[in-house]
Amino acid sequence: MKNFLFLLLAILCQITLHAEDGYRLWLRYDKVDAPHLTALRIEAAPVAQKELTTALEGLLGKPLPLLLNTLTEGTLLVGTPARLTTVAALHLEKDLAPLGEEGFLIRSLTISGKHVTLVTANTDNGLLYGIFHFLRLIQTQQSISDLNISSAPSLPYRILDHWDNLNRTVERGYAGFSIFNWFTLPGYLDQRYTDYARANASIGINGTVLNNVNASPLILTSEYLEKAAALAGVFRPYGIRVYLSVNFASPITIGGLRTADPLDPAVQDWWKKKTDEVYKYIPDFGGFLVKANSEGQPGPQNYGRTHADGANMLADALAPHKGIVMWRAFVYSESSEDRAKQAYNEFKPLDGLFRKNVWVQVKNGPIDFQPREPYHPLFGAMPRTPLMLEFQLTQEYLGFSTHLAYLAPLFRECLDAGPPVSSAITGMAGVANIGNDIDWCGHPFGQANWYAFGRLAWDQHLSSGQIADEWIRQTFSNNPAFVDTVKRIMLASREAIVDYMTPLGLHHIMGYGHHYGPAPWYNKAPRADWNPVYFHRADSAGIGFDRTATGSNALEQYPPDVRALWENADNCPDRWLLWWHHVAWDHRMHTGRTLWEELCHKYYTGVDSVRWMEKAWNAVKNDIDQQRARQISMLLSIQEHEAAWWRDACLLYFQTFSRQPLPAGAELPAHTLDYYEKLNFNNAPGTLR
Amino acid sequence: MKNFLFLLLAILCQITLHAEDGYRLWLRYDKVDAPHLTALRIEAAPVAQKELTTALEGLLGKPLPLLLNTLTEGTLLVGTPARLTTVAALHLEKDLAPLGEEGFLIRSLTISGKHVTLVTANTDNGLLYGIFHFLRLIQTQQSISDLNISSAPSLPYRILDHWDNLNRTVERGYAGFSIFNWFTLPGYLDQRYTDYARANASIGINGTVLNNVNASPLILTSEYLEKAAALAGVFRPYGIRVYLSVNFASPITIGGLRTADPLDPAVQDWWKKKTDEVYKYIPDFGGFLVKANSEGQPGPQNYGRTHADGANMLADALAPHKGIVMWRAFVYSESSEDRAKQAYNEFKPLDGLFRKNVWVQVKNGPIDFQPREPYHPLFGAMPRTPLMLEFQLTQEYLGFSTHLAYLAPLFRECLDAGPPVSSAITGMAGVANIGNDIDWCGHPFGQANWYAFGRLAWDQHLSSGQIADEWIRQTFSNNPAFVDTVKRIMLASREAIVDYMTPLGLHHIMGYGHHYGPAPWYNKAPRADWNPVYFHRADSAGIGFDRTATGSNALEQYPPDVRALWENADNCPDRWLLWWHHVAWDHRMHTGRTLWEELCHKYYTGVDSVRWMEKAWNAVKNDIDQQRARQISMLLSIQEHEAAWWRDACLLYFQTFSRQPLPAGAELPAHTLDYYEKLNFNNAPGTLR
Repeated sequence: MKNFLFLLLAILCQITLHAEDGYRLWLRYDKVDAPHLTALRIEAAPVAQKELTTALEGLLGKPLPLLLNTLTEGTLLVGTPARLTTVAALHLEKDLAPLGEEGFLIRSLTISGKHVTLVTANTDNGLLYGIFHFLRLIQTQQSISDLNISSAPSLPYRILDHWDNLNRTVERGYAGFSIFNWFTLPGYLDQRYTDYARANASIGINGTVLNNVNASPLILTSEYLEKAAALAGVFRPYGIRVYLSVNFASPITIGGLRTADPLDPAVQDWWKKKTDEVYKYIPDFGGFLVKANSEGQPGPQNYGRTHADGANMLADALAPHKGIVMWRAFVYSESSEDRAKQAYNEFKPLDGLFRKNVWVQVKNGPIDFQPREPYHPLFGAMPRTPLMLEFQLTQEYLGFSTHLAYLAPLFRECLDAGPPVSSAITGMAGVANIGNDIDWCGHPFGQANWYAFGRLAWDQHLSSGQIADEWIRQTFSNNPAFVDTVKRIMLASREAIVDYMTPLGLHHIMGYGHHYGPAPWYNKAPRADWNPVYFHRADSAGIGFDRTATGSNALEQYPPDVRALWENADNCPDRWLLWWHHVAWDHRMHTGRTLWEELCHKYYTGVDSVRWMEKAWNAVKNDIDQQRARQISMLLSIQEHEAAWWRDACLLYFQTFSRQPLPAGAELPAHTLDYYEKLNFNNAPGTLR
Repeated sequence: MKNFLFLLLAILCQITLHAEDGYRLWLRYDKVDAPHLTALRIEAAPVAQKELTTALEGLLGKPLPLLLNTLTEGTLLVGTPARLTTVAALHLEKDLAPLGEEGFLIRSLTISGKHVTLVTANTDNGLLYGIFHFLRLIQTQQSISDLNISSAPSLPYRILDHWDNLNRTVERGYAGFSIFNWFTLPGYLDQRYTDYARANASIGINGTVLNNVNASPLILTSEYLEKAAALAGVFRPYGIRVYLSVNFASPITIGGLRTADPLDPAVQDWWKKKTDEVYKYIPDFGGFLVKANSEGQPGPQNYGRTHADGANMLADALAPHKGIVMWRAFVYSESSEDRAKQAYNEFKPLDGLFRKNVWVQVKNGPIDFQPREPYHPLFGAMPRTPLMLEFQLTQEYLGFSTHLAYLAPLFRECLDAGPPVSSAITGMAGVANIGNDIDWCGHPFGQANWYAFGRLAWDQHLSSGQIADEWIRQTFSNNPAFVDTVKRIMLASREAIVDYMTPLGLHHIMGYGHHYGPAPWYNKAPRADWNPVYFHRADSAGIGFDRTATGSNALEQYPPDVRALWENADNCPDRWLLWWHHVAWDHRMHTGRTLWEELCHKYYTGVDSVRWMEKAWNAVKNDIDQQRARQISMLLSIQEHEAAWWRDACLLYFQTFSRQPLPAGAELPAHTLDYYEKLNFNNAPGTLR
C-alpha cells in the first residue's frame, strides 16, 4: 500500500509540473514547507478571499478548513473590524488608526485561549494588501509564530506609466506589445487584465496610466473611454485606479476648437466637460498625465503660456472629482543651453504657482534614464510643489530585455541621494516594462524591476538585497544556496552594465533612435543634444562634459553641500567624474590609474562581471525548472556578447582621441572600429509607432 | 491509510489544475479513460520519444514501464524497421513501401504470443506522424484493440504562410503580433518555437513560410538568414522545412544592381549566388514564395517579362538544391476587366511554360478569401502546372478573431468543387491565424482552423464533422453531450457568417482598408475594384454582379458543366445567385420568396443562428474550465452584437434601392443607416505595417 502511495505521489507530482513560462510572476503559490495553520476564518472582499484561499491551498498543499463562527488553535483570522465582530472586539483602534486607508496589521495573538494569526486593516483595500503580505511571509518561508507587523505605504501615489499606444505598439517596449487590447475592449476582458491587477496589488501599486505620454487624442473619445472604463472595472477591486495620458491639443483635434490656449474660456470649458464625461465612465478616475512642450508634444507654451497655466487648467477641471494632474518636467528645447539644466530652469521659477492637485513628475536624473545619473536638481528645489519621482523600468538604456539588470540599486541610489529625494516626493511613477510576452517582461529578471518598484514605493526603507531575496524566493526557489548566488548576481548586475556601457559618468552614447548598442561616434542627429558626441565631448585633450562653473555650470542647480562633492575633479567620485568634468586622458584617478587606464579597466571589468554572472547562474540553474534555466542562460550569453561589443566599440572609438594602447595582455576587440560604426539595426524593438 | 491516500490524491489533483489559457492547443495530454497498455518499447528520434513518453504519462496518469529488449502482453511497440530488429523481423516491406517518406502504419498484432500495438514507418519523420496519430486515438478515447491503420499524406506540400513582418506586425493578424521575435534571434530560442513545431507536426504540416508575401528585402540579408537558420534548426526535428517570401526587387534593394529583370544575366547570377548562400545557412531550405506584380509589389512585368520568366529564374537558382518556387496567381491590375477574371487571363496562357519546380499558388476563390466564393477557375485550367491551393485561416473577412467561424466546411466546399480541385493540386497553403496571444489564435475556436487545415492537407477525405469531433475531444472534453453540441455549433458557424455578412452570393462589402464590419455603401477607394459598390452593384432594378455572357462573362472561364449550373438565374443555386447575376428585387427565389424577402430572411437567419450558438454554448460550457468557458461566452456576445450590426447596416442600405419594407414583425435596426455609415474605426488590428 505504501509503495502504491508513493508511486501515486510520484505520478501526480509529475503531472503537477506546470510549464514554468513565467506567466505566474512571483505569485506562483506552489507547495512550500509551510508553517502550522489549522484553519481559516475570513470575511473579506471576494477577490481577497479567492486570492487567499487559492494561494494557501497551493502553498500548504491542502485547502484549510473554513471556520464560520468558531476559532480553533492555530487559526488564521482575516477581516476588518467592520466585517468581523471577533476582530472588532479586539479594539485595535489605536493600532489601526495610523495605518490609514491602505495600511494593514498582522499579529500573532491569543483569543479566548486560542493562538491565532490575525490579518486586519481599516479597509478592504488595506486587508487585501495585508493578505498579500502574509502570503509573502509563507512563500518566503518566514516564521509566522510571533508576528507583530504594522505596515502603511510610504507614498500615497504608486503608479505604473504604460508607454502603450492604442494600436498596441509600446514605445520603448521590449516584451512584445501592449497587454491592453483596445480593439476587443470593452466586450472582451482578457484574464491577463485580472492577473495584471493581482500582481500590482500584491506589491502595493495603486494606479496605472494606460497609455503613452506621447498621447493619442483618441483616448478621450467616448469610444476609448468606454474601453478604459472596462479596464477600470477589472482593476477597481484590487485598489488600482486608472489614469490617462492626454494630448494637450485635444480640444482642437477631437474638440473641434481653434485653439488649445489654457487661458481661453472655451478651452477651459471643453476640458471641464470632457473631464466630467471621463468621470461618468470612471467614477474613481485618478487623473491626467501630461507630456507638454517636450519632444514635439503640444503644450501651453504654444500659446505663450507657462506649464503652470496648462497644468492648472486641467487641475481645475479635475478638482471637483478629486482627480490629480501629473505634469512631466521632462522638457528640453533646442538651445545652446546644457540639456541637463533646462528642466530646472523652466520649472524652478514655477514653484508655488501650481494648484494643490498638480504633481510635477520628475525623472530620477536630469538627462534621460541613463544607467547612472546624478539625482535630478529639481528634487529639493521646489519645496512648494509635490513631486512625482519617475523611474524607468523598461530598459531603454540598459540593454532592452536581453540584459539582466536589477534596478533596485539604481532606485535606491536616487532615493538615498541628498537632499533626501524621498522627502520631496508624493509618489513614484514607474515606466512599465510589461508587454504581452507570456512572461510579461521578456526577461525573467525584468519581473524583479516591476516587483522592486512596487515594494520600494510602498516601503522606502527596503534594501535592494531584501527585495531581491523575497523576489527570488517567490519567483524561483527558497533553496538557500540558490537564493544567495542569484542575489549576488542581481546586486552586481546594474554596476556591471554601467561599467560596460557608460563608466565614470559617461552617458547617452548609445545608438541613435532605437538606442540599441554603442554609438559614441554618432553625430548626425537633427539636434545637437541627441548626439552622443554632445555628451561625451571626447577630444585629444580628454573626455567628459564640463558642467562646473568653467563649463555649463549645471552644478549650480544643486545645493552647496552637493556641489562641494562634485565640483572639484580631483575629489569628485570616479562614478560621476565625466558627468561633471572634462578630464585629461592622463588625469590621475583615485585608483592610481590614469583616466584612460581606468576607462579601459572599467569596460573590461564590466564584461568580466557578465562572464561571472553567466558562470554563477549556470552553477545553480539546475535548482529550478529547465525552461527558465535555459531561457536565462541564453539571455546571459547574449548579454555577454553585447557587453563585449560595447567595450570594444567604445574603447576603439575613444582610443582615437587618447591615442593610448589598450591594457597589456587585454582581450583584443573582435572587430575594427569601422566594423562597429557600420553596423545598423533594422526593426529594433520599441520604436514602432 | 486509505483516507490519507485519497486526501493526498484530492490535494495533488487540485494542484495539477493548469490555468487553461489555451497555450497547449489540442496537445493537452491530461488524463483520460485510457485503453490497456502495459509497457512501452520505443526506438525513435529524441523529440518523438519525448513527445510520446510525456504524452502517455499525462494521458494514462502514470509513466509506462520502458522495455529495452523484451515484449510483454499489451506492449506499445514504436520504431522503424531500421531502428528495431523486432520490427524489421515482421517484414512489413510490402505494407510500408506505399507509405513513402511520411506515411505510417499502426497495427494490432501478435508477436511470439504477445498482443502488442505497433507504430512504425519507413522514416523517423513518418514515425513521428504515427506517434501523433496514435496519441490522437487515445486523446479521443478510441479503441486500440484491433488497429490496422495505414496513412500517407494526400499532398506532399502542407504549408503555413505567415503574413508576419520583420517588425512583428502581422498583416491581417488578429491574435496579437508575430510569434517570430527576429530581434532576439538567433541567440534566444523561445520555447514557443518548439511548441509551434510540435503543433504543426501533430497535424502533418511540413512547411512554414516565415514572412509576409509583401516581403521586406531584408529577409535575404545575412543578418536575417542567420536568424531564419536558427528557426529552421528548431523545426527540423519535427519534419518542418522553412520557406521564405522574397521581394522580386531584392537584387536592386539589397544587391545594389540597377535592375531586377529576370532575363538579365547579372540578375540571374545574383539570385543564384543568393540562393546558394541561403542553402549554406539552411541546407534543407524549402524554397521561395513570391507575390509579384500584385497590389504594388514589384515583378517581372516591370521589365516587360512574364510571370513565367520571373518564376523560372528563381526556379533555376533553386533547382540544384531541390528547392521550389511558389508563385502566387493573386494578381489583378487596375483595369475595366472584372477583377474575378484577371488571374485566369494572366496565368492560363502560361500553362506549360513554368519550370518543373514551380508551383503556381491559387487562392480558393477568384476574388479574395470571402465567406463564400466559387472555386477559382484556374483549378483544372492549368493541367501542365502543379498548383498550390491557398486558403486563409486568419479571418480577414470572417469576423477577425472575435467571431467563431469553423472553416473546414469552407475548405471542403472548395476541395469538393468540380472539376475536382483536389486532383489539380500538389499542396495546400494556409495563411496562418497564429499570433503571440497566449492562446495562439485569439479565439479558442480559431485553433480549430489551424487544426482542420493540417488534417485536411494530410487526408483530403476527412469530413468537417470528423475533424471537429477529434479537435473538440482533444481541446476541451470527451463528454459526448458536450462534443455533440459544440460540433453542431462549429458546423453551423460558417454558414451563419455567410448569412449575416454576405448571403446569396454577395461579396466584398466590408469596411475599406481594415475590412472590419459592413460598408456596402463605400465608394471612395482609389480603385474601383476595391469598392463594395463595385461588387454588389445594387440599383433600383436589383442587385448582384452579372458575370454571365450578358455581363463580364467571368463564367466562360469555367468548364461547360459548371457553367450550366450557374449561368441561368432561374436555376442557379441561391448561394451563388448574386455572384453571377444582377437580379431584380422581385425575382422569385426557389424558396418562393422574392429576392428582397430572401435577402432579409438570410440576414435575420444569420443573427438568429449566432443567438442559437450562444445559447447552445452557455448550456454546455460548464463541462469545461471556467477560463475558456467565460472567454468564449464573451466572444460570442461580441459576435452576436456584430452580426446584428452587419444585418442592420446592410439591409438599411440595400433597402434604399429595393424600397421595400423589412419583414413584418422583424426586430428593428438599432440605429439609422446614417449612424452606421458614419462609424469609423481607429487602430483596427491587422493593418499596422
